[in-house]
Amino acid sequence: MRIAVINPNTTASMTATIGDAARRVANPSTVIDAITSSMGPASIEGYYDEALAVPGLLVEIARAEKQGAAAAIIACFDDTGLDAARALASIPVIGICEAALAATSFIAQRFSVVTTMERSRLPVEHLVRRYGMAGRCTVRAADIPVLSLEDPQSNARDRLRSEIAAALKDDRAEAIVLGCAGMADLALDLRREFSVPVVDGVAAAVKQAEALVAMGLSTAKRSAYARPVDKRYDGAMEAFAPSAMGV
Amino acid sequence: MRIAVINPNTTASMTATIGDAARRVANPSTVIDAITSSMGPASIEGYYDEALAVPGLLVEIARAEKQGAAAAIIACFDDTGLDAARALASIPVIGICEAALAATSFIAQRFSVVTTMERSRLPVEHLVRRYGMAGRCTVRAADIPVLSLEDPQSNARDRLRSEIAAALKDDRAEAIVLGCAGMADLALDLRREFSVPVVDGVAAAVKQAEALVAMGLSTAKRSAYARPVDKRYDGAMEAFAPSAMGV
Amino acid sequence: MRIAVINPNTTASMTATIGDAARRVANPSTVIDAITSSMGPASIEGYYDEALAVPGLLVEIARAEKQGAAAAIIACFDDTGLDAARALASIPVIGICEAALAATSFIAQRFSVVTTMERSRLPVEHLVRRYGMAGRCTVRAADIPVLSLEDPQSNARDRLRSEIAAALKDDRAEAIVLGCAGMADLALDLRREFSVPVVDGVAAAVKQAEALVAMGLSTAKRSAYARPVDKRYDGAMEAFAPSAMGV
Amino acid sequence: MRIAVINPNTTASMTATIGDAARRVANPSTVIDAITSSMGPASIEGYYDEALAVPGLLVEIARAEKQGAAAAIIACFDDTGLDAARALASIPVIGICEAALAATSFIAQRFSVVTTMERSRLPVEHLVRRYGMAGRCTVRAADIPVLSLEDPQSNARDRLRSEIAAALKDDRAEAIVLGCAGMADLALDLRREFSVPVVDGVAAAVKQAEALVAMGLSTAKRSAYARPVDKRYDGAMEAFAPSAMGV
Amino acid sequence: MRIAVINPNTTASMTATIGDAARRVANPSTVIDAITSSMGPASIEGYYDEALAVPGLLVEIARAEKQGAAAAIIACFDDTGLDAARALASIPVIGICEAALAATSFIAQRFSVVTTMERSRLPVEHLVRRYGMAGRCTVRAADIPVLSLEDPQSNARDRLRSEIAAALKDDRAEAIVLGCAGMADLALDLRREFSVPVVDGVAAAVKQAEALVAMGLSTAKRSAYARPVDKRYDGAMEAFAPSAMGV
Amino acid sequence: MRIAVINPNTTASMTATIGDAARRVANPSTVIDAITSSMGPASIEGYYDEALAVPGLLVEIARAEKQGAAAAIIACFDDTGLDAARALASIPVIGICEAALAATSFIAQRFSVVTTMERSRLPVEHLVRRYGMAGRCTVRAADIPVLSLEDPQSNARDRLRSEIAAALKDDRAEAIVLGCAGMADLALDLRREFSVPVVDGVAAAVKQAEALVAMGLSTAKRSAYARPVDKRYDGAMEAFAPSAMGV
Repeated sequence: MRIAVINPNTTASMTATIGDAARRVANPSTVIDAITSSMGPASIEGYYDEALAVPGLLVEIARAEKQGAAAAIIACFDDTGLDAARALASIPVIGICEAALAATSFIAQRFSVVTTMERSRLPVEHLVRRYGMAGRCTVRAADIPVLSLEDPQSNARDRLRSEIAAALKDDRAEAIVLGCAGMADLALDLRREFSVPVVDGVAAAVKQAEALVAMGLSTAKRSAYARPVDKRYDGAMEAFAPSAMGV
Repeated sequence: MRIAVINPNTTASMTATIGDAARRVANPSTVIDAITSSMGPASIEGYYDEALAVPGLLVEIARAEKQGAAAAIIACFDDTGLDAARALASIPVIGICEAALAATSFIAQRFSVVTTMERSRLPVEHLVRRYGMAGRCTVRAADIPVLSLEDPQSNARDRLRSEIAAALKDDRAEAIVLGCAGMADLALDLRREFSVPVVDGVAAAVKQAEALVAMGLSTAKRSAYARPVDKRYDGAMEAFAPSAMGV
Repeated sequence: MRIAVINPNTTASMTATIGDAARRVANPSTVIDAITSSMGPASIEGYYDEALAVPGLLVEIARAEKQGAAAAIIACFDDTGLDAARALASIPVIGICEAALAATSFIAQRFSVVTTMERSRLPVEHLVRRYGMAGRCTVRAADIPVLSLEDPQSNARDRLRSEIAAALKDDRAEAIVLGCAGMADLALDLRREFSVPVVDGVAAAVKQAEALVAMGLSTAKRSAYARPVDKRYDGAMEAFAPSAMGV
Repeated sequence: MRIAVINPNTTASMTATIGDAARRVANPSTVIDAITSSMGPASIEGYYDEALAVPGLLVEIARAEKQGAAAAIIACFDDTGLDAARALASIPVIGICEAALAATSFIAQRFSVVTTMERSRLPVEHLVRRYGMAGRCTVRAADIPVLSLEDPQSNARDRLRSEIAAALKDDRAEAIVLGCAGMADLALDLRREFSVPVVDGVAAAVKQAEALVAMGLSTAKRSAYARPVDKRYDGAMEAFAPSAMGV
Repeated sequence: MRIAVINPNTTASMTATIGDAARRVANPSTVIDAITSSMGPASIEGYYDEALAVPGLLVEIARAEKQGAAAAIIACFDDTGLDAARALASIPVIGICEAALAATSFIAQRFSVVTTMERSRLPVEHLVRRYGMAGRCTVRAADIPVLSLEDPQSNARDRLRSEIAAALKDDRAEAIVLGCAGMADLALDLRREFSVPVVDGVAAAVKQAEALVAMGLSTAKRSAYARPVDKRYDGAMEAFAPSAMGV
Repeated sequence: MRIAVINPNTTASMTATIGDAARRVANPSTVIDAITSSMGPASIEGYYDEALAVPGLLVEIARAEKQGAAAAIIACFDDTGLDAARALASIPVIGICEAALAATSFIAQRFSVVTTMERSRLPVEHLVRRYGMAGRCTVRAADIPVLSLEDPQSNARDRLRSEIAAALKDDRAEAIVLGCAGMADLALDLRREFSVPVVDGVAAAVKQAEALVAMGLSTAKRSAYARPVDKRYDGAMEAFAPSAMGV
């Protein structure tokens, strides 16, 4: 079984972190393809970046399906382009936010997400509401740029730690969800440090993808996820006409 | 006062209908610029089309602001790219779905949206929930392609009519919201035919845009609508780097 | 187009402030009739005052419609008697709370209302919930009597300012809604002082009323807003029998 | 213990029915004062009637408290003027809708209210939501004028019966709530006829009032139910100035 | 009329406190049978104790019905086994949490429950949500073991007092609900001390039980509360086979 | 990795079906222990059976943990005793309802559960609400006894089929969730028959359990799932005192 883990941020070093986290939990028989999108923002920080990461993401989703991936994962915590990807693909597509929230819901009644930038907090709160977790999940932002997580000089990890401490003290959180794919390598250390479950969405999405494939389940195609109607696409988007995507 | 009414569908005939509807209700001193996006799908029918209409829309939003528009309207009922556009622009940006729902909320306690394709129903329902109208608004689909509304041979308008009749009979609807920019020319006739308020989102958005401008209000820039952080954009999206958008 | 802006508080100086705010944003062709109710409490502070302001308000609503107003505005932030007025009148009737919340929803995802008395906070929270804004709007009270806003000796405006500051610091508010018609003259100054959008409901309601009239829309008369059934009214209320109201 | 059961409809024959229903369930030591309001509409059918019944109701609430009633009941299913009455009075005030819903919540998970006029359905639905029962309670209207319930020639009771039958068949209702004080005499017969619990709000409110008095509980006066601030009342409402009400 | 007040905690001294509180508010003609469960945990503190208290509770529910009780009360604030008891019994069964919340809803718009252990807070919050009070009720835990309430040496009552003070200061609570049957004797003193309504669920449940009996109402048997289907029960649970319960 | 799949129904033939379904999707390295509870009802049909199945279930949960299971699954669709089991155990515990809903949420926006008895419908609806799926999931009952699923003479499977057909036609369901552990063998056939995803909770729970174990996650022990406080247990429940359970 091959699972495509697509990083819609165009930063390859971040993809390496994501791929490692994915492989750490994957079944022995699962092959993880960690893929960096080649068009869009270097990092996704808020609505504007998110919107412009979607075309690049969809290119990779289509390519992964054509190359035989059994499932695809969108490795950005705002679940970038998830609905469009599900409409396009026949294989299951999983967002790391939805996977992280679902996994955490089995081990804690209340929990907190700690994400990066303040501007990402509302979008994540919208996801939390959409996924039915609004009554039990608080969203916090450590106010750190996404790529600072990779910079050993920055204080990003310290800020993340102090936000986790605040969540455990003030939110009645029983567990912590890491709110950025770029934090995927930190889950184990933070779990040890804070003695509470710390959930990384990349790992959660890999296991969820394996689960759907094992059960033979894929996206229902009856309503809003029906295959896109073919039509003319204009200008720089011409290549995205459904029939041109080849899936 | 100039208001840019941007059609994210790349079909110019549809834009003409939209422009006419906008001008019909605009103040005498308001100039309506009806603009057709030049990149993206010919019509927006579901999540996939919607996602790929956003870059073209954002190009027009930025251009409109630079050319002095006082406000911008997104003339597609799924409020395509609204959050990204609000983050990008300094001028107010209004979606026709949100404007239509708000206007209708002042004249009816329960109402129904009639949109085009079944696959657009769930996305519109998500908007209805987001805008706080879930308890009072039903969404129906007439199961007609968007562009069939322009085709005098099609039975699109008959299906729309029969769905309106069903809403009035079965949903306890007191008013009808037309769930597609391509229906903007039909509001008056349908109002006469059914003797209930029939609300077109293009008209509603124009009046809402005029209102915000008259009150001197524009998008709050404190949180998720803060101006995008400048950064490298890769591949075909290079031109969308925030600093390259010129607003 | 004439719009009746009815102050259900019987204090004429407050009506003058309201009328000025209304005229400041009205279209050149709109005539604002600022009207003081002649029966009821000098100021509306809580449920009891609100209930007893309604008959006086309804008298003015009926009179305004008979005298040719195109729309009526209820200039008190608890949207006093809105449902009864909508049932009675054929012209559109707008409350300043609902108008302020709707306008703010187009420019901010989260915002705070600052009202006057603590006892008005729960009634305004009920309105916020009714209008579908409960997840995004916090209500605060500055703990000031309504009429103290007009008293240059009082510290009312200072308390209002400090509550706005608290909202911006603690509520994640991106914009402020002024929760009393008597604050209508303060919006511009406060906007400059705090550098965030500050929304006055009187202005918002005027623009909303103009919008509905321009679109040819008025209250749907199919359900709870159907014209009252005529019947005997007893005692001091005799003159309110529907047929006696003349609309 | 004396309990004032106030009929805000000014129709004395209806009050007689209400008084009988109240006495049927009251404790032997409870005295029921069944009181007809002397100002306002002959029957309350929708928002307009409801608003204009409030002043007359408040007069009787104040009088009852001054004359030593231990609690007051508002005998109209839209809980007419409940908030204003609670702010005014020191004794507990109970609405028959809230009492009926609470009682039914102890014996059924899902239930249906059957009220009179279609125009009362939305107001009752708002109450159902306010009282936290929205997920388990359906509201139906039998489309009958309130006073037709007293007319043996009318088909009102047949329409009520057929709406109850529909509720049991289509709403998954386990119990029925009678949605009008004028139906108070029908509960027992309908219970026998349909073999399900049928709840009358007048009876429920009497027992709830006795309960609060026995427990020594009355309205909390800390927030929106704080005693009204005294002030000038103008015009025909002069006598309603809080200090003039004598409670 | 005999009402069985069943303490599902197996601690007789606690039952004595409960019985006293019940008799204090009961009608003169009501006989209170205060019953201690003979199987299960000495005190119910959290989900595990709650689950294992249910069989013992059901034994007493069945016995009470067979011995002629007109209604049964479950005297533990997590409403232990309420749904199972309602399915089993023909007489009305009332939980003290649901009764306390309902009574308080008639006298306050916002209120706080103060319960014992932190681990009971989430279960009580689930009840608050189920009973439709989530928007108006805050749950606090004084972090005291249930049985420490009986120990004059412990600081349990001081902690309870300081949590009540915090609720009045920080939760906008207008009234307090005591969140444990073991606090039933404290309501009057705390009411005097804090000058707000303090509601004890045991008392509230007794009055509610009397009310239902007076109205001739009992559990609807149409859906999830239908009498259990008889069947084989195995092992130590053999005696709980529905036909063996004798009701 | 050993996973204990515990059937809280005491019917061994049903456990065999469950064990087969579990093994069909488990990883090669996972050992499935399918365990029949030895105390409680032969089948769980409604609240009463559910409550009395819990002690037997908890015995097996404790035993499984002591014998080295890495996770436990409760194989009954009402997620019998889930909260108590999570408080007791250190290993993750998964309910088949929660697992099925979570899995389905990744492949469909709207879906329907088809359960067995009408009396189980409300309990399942409560779970659906608790798990945050209320807006997107409809619950239906085929009105069949649980054990009739095993009886080739019964029409149980036909009724199940016709309820699925109704869900696809009337609920806008995109996928079907089988609402009983006893249906676990039917998922594949029904998927083929109806050409939509059909989800079995036993399979979903196995994959979810494997996922949590692979990620090193288990129940957070900070709040309501904290280990039970040790104390005296009385009567037939003596052996359930936390310290006697040996975990």
